[in-house]
Amino acid sequence: MNSKNKKDLIKPQTLKGFRDFYASDARLRQYVISIIKKTFEKYGYEPLETPALEYAQVLAGKSGGEMDKLSYIFKDQGGRSIGLKYDLTVPSCRFVAQNFSNLTFPFKRYMIQPVWRAEKPQKGRFREFFQCDADVWGSTSPLVEAEFIQMGIEAIQKLGFKDFVTRINNRKIINAILSFAKAKKKDYYTIAIAIDKLEKIGLDGVKKELEKRGIKKEVSQKILKLISLTGPTKDQLKDLKVILKDSKEAQEGIQELETIFSYLKTVSVNPRFYKYDPSIIRGMSYYTGPVWEFTVIEGGVGSIGGCGRYDKLTGTYIGKDIPAAGGSFGIERIIEVIKDRKMLPQPKNLSQIMVAIFSEKLQNEAFLLAKDLREANIITELYPDPEAKLQKQLKYASQKEIPFVAIIGPDEAKAGKVALKNMSTREQEIITQKDLITKLSG
Amino acid sequence: MNSKNKKDLIKPQTLKGFRDFYASDARLRQYVISIIKKTFEKYGYEPLETPALEYAQVLAGKSGGEMDKLSYIFKDQGGRSIGLKYDLTVPSCRFVAQNFSNLTFPFKRYMIQPVWRAEKPQKGRFREFFQCDADVWGSTSPLVEAEFIQMGIEAIQKLGFKDFVTRINNRKIINAILSFAKAKKKDYYTIAIAIDKLEKIGLDGVKKELEKRGIKKEVSQKILKLISLTGPTKDQLKDLKVILKDSKEAQEGIQELETIFSYLKTVSVNPRFYKYDPSIIRGMSYYTGPVWEFTVIEGGVGSIGGCGRYDKLTGTYIGKDIPAAGGSFGIERIIEVIKDRKMLPQPKNLSQIMVAIFSEKLQNEAFLLAKDLREANIITELYPDPEAKLQKQLKYASQKEIPFVAIIGPDEAKAGKVALKNMSTREQEIITQKDLITKLSG
Repeated sequence: MNSKNKKDLIKPQTLKGFRDFYASDARLRQYVISIIKKTFEKYGYEPLETPALEYAQVLAGKSGGEMDKLSYIFKDQGGRSIGLKYDLTVPSCRFVAQNFSNLTFPFKRYMIQPVWRAEKPQKGRFREFFQCDADVWGSTSPLVEAEFIQMGIEAIQKLGFKDFVTRINNRKIINAILSFAKAKKKDYYTIAIAIDKLEKIGLDGVKKELEKRGIKKEVSQKILKLISLTGPTKDQLKDLKVILKDSKEAQEGIQELETIFSYLKTVSVNPRFYKYDPSIIRGMSYYTGPVWEFTVIEGGVGSIGGCGRYDKLTGTYIGKDIPAAGGSFGIERIIEVIKDRKMLPQPKNLSQIMVAIFSEKLQNEAFLLAKDLREANIITELYPDPEAKLQKQLKYASQKEIPFVAIIGPDEAKAGKVALKNMSTREQEIITQKDLITKLSG
Repeated sequence: MNSKNKKDLIKPQTLKGFRDFYASDARLRQYVISIIKKTFEKYGYEPLETPALEYAQVLAGKSGGEMDKLSYIFKDQGGRSIGLKYDLTVPSCRFVAQNFSNLTFPFKRYMIQPVWRAEKPQKGRFREFFQCDADVWGSTSPLVEAEFIQMGIEAIQKLGFKDFVTRINNRKIINAILSFAKAKKKDYYTIAIAIDKLEKIGLDGVKKELEKRGIKKEVSQKILKLISLTGPTKDQLKDLKVILKDSKEAQEGIQELETIFSYLKTVSVNPRFYKYDPSIIRGMSYYTGPVWEFTVIEGGVGSIGGCGRYDKLTGTYIGKDIPAAGGSFGIERIIEVIKDRKMLPQPKNLSQIMVAIFSEKLQNEAFLLAKDLREANIITELYPDPEAKLQKQLKYASQKEIPFVAIIGPDEAKAGKVALKNMSTREQEIITQKDLITKLSG
């Protein structure tokens, strides 16, 4: 190997907030994605993949303000203002609008792709990360939400979580509660933000928060009463129905939730996994109906998915509103938790066996053994250098944590057998190739 | 649906040279990728995924000149010069250099990810496209190349191609031929480019090309003679061995090819699928040993993969050379051909059946049927709106080309059965749910 002039070297480094994924890390991601994908597909969602780059104008469509600061926007060689996608919702709305006349509605698609945000990197927050969305366009039926919740619960169970809950609310009910409490329209956002913290800071905390923000006591009291009803979901909704009997919006919202809960009961989803939760807000920007969050309780993991109905968003692109509902799974958070808790352990390397080359004279025996193992669909490495000492070859297998090494030396070649070394027990046995294949296929 | 003010609309369009992939298009890509992935993994290659963005300095590392013009380079919010990756080789070399002390060598990895090039879009050429690479770092053994060729041939067969050939050459032999013909060093590139066209323009064409470029007649003649040897690979190499007996580089190169051909013969790769081809050059920039191309003959598809040994490239990042070999499969071209020739037809939509909702009164029966079908792993859509007319529901299924629709009307509900409509024959049968599941699971 030649030495290079140090000053000519390019420093090999990734950008801050960006990550490489290799071997077990890459495979764990792919595995988690495949479980979610399969579940979505079983419910009739089709895959959509959109480009990394879009017109900046398209990206700005949803314009949450935050978006402008955190997007990678630049000019291309043609002087066009373009940018890397910031989320999956915007490109999806663009796709629906662009292909409107060719799509069949209700239009169901899922998307699992990276997005880019120029955020300050910190633990668990990256500048490039995967998002995972599933949505339905073109139906106002709350059965869309109901089925989505069923599907989400199924996916979360398949990922190995046991203790979690879907917390369901309806933006129509929240609006009705604020209106009932005679809150000022201009305070809606402030109040919603406070309510959103209920889980974290408790009823007293919300009360203080509202006081601090200058919300009148009599308004606060009414709101606090209505977001702290107790008892089973069914009873809470019944109570709300009576209290908010004069609000058409409330009656609609409650009816939608009843449809959702009735569906989940009919299809025997374990009631442990879902409940009405008046504190779920999910931002105030574009949701118009039911909103829900998948919260993992075990290990204090928290929210791993946020969803809702947004009937007005697609209109920005197409000139008329298309009702839509769906949401995102926090796939990066899910992968992180699964990795930390070793819920789906991945071997360091996939290879089941390495075939060593005893000597150049016996290399053909090694070539043929590797070939036969692969033909039996056994993941096999053939050490590539016949001149390497056996010890070097074994060290390679050991470092890569390959569980078995097969060696055909002169005795084995004569007897038509294989020396099989178990790399964890260091035991070696002499077996036929047929037995070896049976052993590894098992 | 409300009408929006036309002038507020954002025009929904993708950037030129960029594409959306939906449903069957997305699934075909995923399927092709999965076949290649599985083959690579069977040979002990592990997945690597690197970020879309890299430091511009890292991207410029390989610096083919072309690179600077065609890269998406821009400044991020922190003023860093960054860019979208242009190929998979550069980020891989960066990864190997960055993780050098933690990797086990020989280091085998594959990568299937998008890259971005600001090229003029034209038929079959896009600004965002997938590349698919597999490479091994840390071994000079030609067995690396031999096994790669075996693996490539296996992948191509699994993709459904029947008539193709791996054309194999060695840059060492080319160098020796040019040196033997007393070509000037400065003409090497010009001559190589001319030789590279042999397949397309024939021997006479190459002759004219060399004349036009001012290569002396006696030089040309010698070169043309040596790149037009006839007979089986074995005989051609034997002849070259004699003619180039004074060139150590030639002897090395021939020996390497002999090792490769001997391996392929030992593992019984059909000799139809590989041959020595002195016209394979694969650019002059960084290859140092064997080079090869996978060429699909049927339908005049042409090259779908280019590979070679490049022992000096990684040195740019790490200060010492690391031998490496491997290559790229032209996955976009492969997908295009497979799609055009309907080699792996994908249904428009995955759904095997749609469960219609006969009426709100009978909706629970529909919910439960959909649930049971999914539990049997049958891809099922439940029409989400119980208020929609049956005709509308059937139209949806028909547009999405869902093959079956299940309906539970009052009679079926009473009899505990299902009306199953075959959407292509328009025939309807009344069957039990058990029989329905058996039918669709088959």
